[in-house]
Amino acid sequence: MIVIHAYFDIKPEKRERFLEQIQPLIKSSKAEEGNITYHLYEDTKIPTKFIMVEEWKDEAAVEFHNNTDEFIHFGSISSEFFVNPVKVYQFAVSKKN
Amino acid sequence: MIVIHAYFDIKPEKRERFLEQIQPLIKSSKAEEGNITYHLYEDTKIPTKFIMVEEWKDEAAVEFHNNTDEFIHFGSISSEFFVNPVKVYQFAVSKKN
Repeated sequence: MIVIHAYFDIKPEKRERFLEQIQPLIKSSKAEEGNITYHLYEDTKIPTKFIMVEEWKDEAAVEFHNNTDEFIHFGSISSEFFVNPVKVYQFAVSKKN
Repeated sequence: MIVIHAYFDIKPEKRERFLEQIQPLIKSSKAEEGNITYHLYEDTKIPTKFIMVEEWKDEAAVEFHNNTDEFIHFGSISSEFFVNPVKVYQFAVSKKN
């Protein structure tokens, strides 16, 4: 199993548009066969910082996800929103309880 | 290494008080020797749903955390805030990259 924490740092003026434009990616990611969790959360103190909390069945599911049209499309428009590159931490999980 | 996702479902009328009352726990948890990350995020769609995203050095660090005064104190007052019991998922991580 794989857990991913993807941290987004958004330009303040682009916050609403980011929240709008990321919805198709969230929807399609949740529908992927290998996905367990894919959910966007906002920092309770800094309204331009977000985290995508993801759980995937395995490495192959992450690989598949990273090659989907939605993921590639969002990547192509993301520079419009981000102050910094996305920070992605990937955890190989041996046990979940 | 251990990753924890703790999901909170808060009574709407208690949202501000929850955000206020959980700050000492966040502060003390971040200061614990075994902590790597301890951060509270809010669901971007449902303003009464929160997640604490946690990273700990090892099982002993989690054990220590669960026995701190702040953790025990917050546990004792938490029924005031929660619609449902906290859902805690703990991931044993073999690799982080």
